[in-house]
Amino acid sequence: MSRNILILPGDGIGPEITAEAVKILEAARSEGLDITLSEGKVGGAGYDAAGHPLPKDTLDAAKAADAILLGAVGGPQWDKLEDISLRPERGLLGLRKELELFANLRPAILYPQLAEASSLKPEVVSGLDIMIVRELTGGIYFGQPRGIETRDGQQVGYNTYVYSESEIERIGRTAFEMAQKRNKKLCSVDKANVLEVTMLWRDVMERISADYPDVELSHMYVDNAAMQLVRAPKQFDVVVTGNMFGDILSDEAAMLTGSIGMLPSASLNASGQGMYEPCHGSAPDIAGQGIANPLATILSVAMMLRYSLNEAAWAERIEKAVGVVLDEGLRTADIAYAGTRKVSTSEMGDAVLAAF
Amino acid sequence: MSRNILILPGDGIGPEITAEAVKILEAARSEGLDITLSEGKVGGAGYDAAGHPLPKDTLDAAKAADAILLGAVGGPQWDKLEDISLRPERGLLGLRKELELFANLRPAILYPQLAEASSLKPEVVSGLDIMIVRELTGGIYFGQPRGIETRDGQQVGYNTYVYSESEIERIGRTAFEMAQKRNKKLCSVDKANVLEVTMLWRDVMERISADYPDVELSHMYVDNAAMQLVRAPKQFDVVVTGNMFGDILSDEAAMLTGSIGMLPSASLNASGQGMYEPCHGSAPDIAGQGIANPLATILSVAMMLRYSLNEAAWAERIEKAVGVVLDEGLRTADIAYAGTRKVSTSEMGDAVLAAF
Ligand SMILES: CC(C)[C@H](C(=O)O)[C@@H](O)C(=O)O
Ligand SMILES: CC(C)[C@H](C(=O)O)[C@@H](O)C(=O)O
Repeated sequence: MSRNILILPGDGIGPEITAEAVKILEAARSEGLDITLSEGKVGGAGYDAAGHPLPKDTLDAAKAADAILLGAVGGPQWDKLEDISLRPERGLLGLRKELELFANLRPAILYPQLAEASSLKPEVVSGLDIMIVRELTGGIYFGQPRGIETRDGQQVGYNTYVYSESEIERIGRTAFEMAQKRNKKLCSVDKANVLEVTMLWRDVMERISADYPDVELSHMYVDNAAMQLVRAPKQFDVVVTGNMFGDILSDEAAMLTGSIGMLPSASLNASGQGMYEPCHGSAPDIAGQGIANPLATILSVAMMLRYSLNEAAWAERIEKAVGVVLDEGLRTADIAYAGTRKVSTSEMGDAVLAAF
Repeated sequence: MSRNILILPGDGIGPEITAEAVKILEAARSEGLDITLSEGKVGGAGYDAAGHPLPKDTLDAAKAADAILLGAVGGPQWDKLEDISLRPERGLLGLRKELELFANLRPAILYPQLAEASSLKPEVVSGLDIMIVRELTGGIYFGQPRGIETRDGQQVGYNTYVYSESEIERIGRTAFEMAQKRNKKLCSVDKANVLEVTMLWRDVMERISADYPDVELSHMYVDNAAMQLVRAPKQFDVVVTGNMFGDILSDEAAMLTGSIGMLPSASLNASGQGMYEPCHGSAPDIAGQGIANPLATILSVAMMLRYSLNEAAWAERIEKAVGVVLDEGLRTADIAYAGTRKVSTSEMGDAVLAAF
C-alpha cells in the first residue's frame, strides 16, 4: 500500500530546502519505494494563500498523511499581524496539537567531518550524540488560561504551565524506550525545587522507571542542565523534558555541534504518524538566495523513513549519501571553511542524490 | 553611620566560603570601613535550627540590614521534606520576595588568567563580559494559582507565568540604566511568538526604550538566545529577561567562562538594599572538605560594596586583590590545571587577604 507523504514547504528558506529533500524522495520512489507525494501550504504561506496559517485543506491532508515533511515557518512580514492566532507559528503549533504529535525527537550529533564548526573545544564535543525527547503538545505552550488583560488599571500577561500524569507518562515511556535502544541512560530535566508542575513530572518519571530496570534514570534541574550541556555534553545520552525547557535545551544542544543546518527532528504521535522538520528555522535573511543548507531537511526524510514508514534501509542509504558528500568536502555557506568546497543549496541536493 | 551587613552562610559549602569573605570584610572594617556584621540562619540550616528555612528572626534581621551576604542553600538531606514550603530553596525565595529584590544582576566575565578553564574555544570567549539582568520576584516562580490536584481521576500539576506592566517596566529600567553604564546594547529575551505574557514583556520594553535613546534595544527568542550564547556570546552586552529564562540563561552564560566558582551576583530592591551571593550552589558533594572556591563569594562582597554601600573604592581593592592572587597562579581545585598551585578554601581566602 502506498504511503502518503505531505510536503509543507512553509516560509523563508523552507521551499528551497524541501525541494532538495523531495528530489531524494522521488529518486527513492523511482527505485521502488511505494510513496505518494502531495504538497500543501502552512505558516505565512498558508496565511497569504488562504488567510490562515493552517488552512483547513492543509489540516485535512495532514491528518490523512502517513508522514509530513515540513520546511520552516515564520518571517518578519507576518510579525506585525495583530491577531496572533494568524501568525505563522500558529500553523506549526496547530499541526502539532491537532495530530497529537506529543513526542519531539531532536538529536544533537556532531558529524566528525564538521568538528571544526563547533564553538566548543574538540575534546569536549567529539563524538557527541545526544537525543533530546521534548514533550510537544502540552505544558505552557498550550496551557489555559492564557492572555493579556487589564487588572487594577494596568495590563497583565499570563500563561499556564500544566501537565497531567498521563501526559507525563506518555512522553516518559517514549524516552525510556529510546534510552533502551541507545546507551540506557535517561536524564529527566525539571525545576522541581520551584515548580509544582515539575514536581509531578519528577514523581511520574520515578514511578514509571520501575518498568525499565535496564535504564538508569537521573534528574537534573533545568538551570544545571543548561550549564552541563556547555561544560560536559557527552555525559548525556537521552534527555527528556517538557515543551518549554525542551525548546531551549534542544536548541542549545544543537548549537554545540556548530552545525544546526545539519540537524533533523521528528514529531510523533501514538500511532507512529509523524512530522519531520529541520531544527533550524526559516532564516528569512537568506531566503531565496540558494545558499541555505538542505542537509537537515534531507536527514529529516531519513528520520521519516525510519520512524513513520518503517524503512530503515532507505534511511540508512540517505544518511550514508550525506556522509559521502561531507567526506568529499562539499559545504553550504553555513558549514564552509578554508579547504572545503562551497556549494549552493541545489548543488548540495544534487550531490546527495548522486551519492544515493 | 555604620552599615549593617547580615551574613547568611546557609548550607553545604556556604559556611566555608562565607567565612573567607568575612575575613575580607573584617580587614576592611579594621582599616576604617564603617560596618557592623551579624549572622543568621537560612535554608536547611534555618530548618534544622528553627524548623523553617526562613526563620522569623532571620527575616527581621534581613529587613533591617543594609546588605546581606548569602552563601548557598540546599542539600539532599532536605529534599525528602514532604512539605515543600519547608525546603531550603523556600528560604532563598522568601528573602527575595519579602525584601522585593526584583533585580538580579549576574555578570558572566571571563578572567584572562582562567581562559583555559572554558570548554569553548579561546577566540569565542576571550574578553567575554556579559551582564544578565534577571527579574527575581515575579514570573512563574511566584505566580498564582499553583499546585498539584486531582482532576478527572488523575493528578495535574500547574504553575502560572504572570507579569504586570509595572513589574516589567521596573526591571526594564534597571536593565536600560545598566546598559547606559556599559556598552549601550540591551537584548531583551522572551518567547513572544508563543507566550502572551512575554508579548506584553516585549511591548513594555519597546515602550520604555524611548526614554533611553542612547541604548540599542534588540529582542531575541529564548531558544535562539540559548543558541547564540554558545555560538557567539560576545555579541551580548546586557541581557534582560524574566525569572525562569534568567535562571536558565544566566547559568548557561556563567558556564561559558568555565569558572562558575568565580562569579558573584547581586539582587537589589528599589531602595538599593541588596543580597549578594555566589552564582554557584551549595555543592553538598564537596562540603566540609575545605576545597571549595571562595572567590565568587569574595567578589560578591565587592559587588555589595559597590551597589549597596556606595564604596566603589573598597570594591576595586577587593577585585584587584583577586586579580593578584590569580596572577600568582593560586587555584582552588575547580579552576586548577597543570602549572598552577592548588590551594584550599582558606589558603585562597588568606591569599586574597594578603593581597588586599
Ligand atoms: C517556531 C516556534 C513556535 C517553535 C517552538 O517554540 O516550538 C520552534 O522554536 C521550535 O522549536 O520548533
Ligand atoms: C535554588 C533555586 C531556587 C534558585 C533559582 O532557581 O532561582 C537558583 O537556581 C538560583 O538561580 O539562584
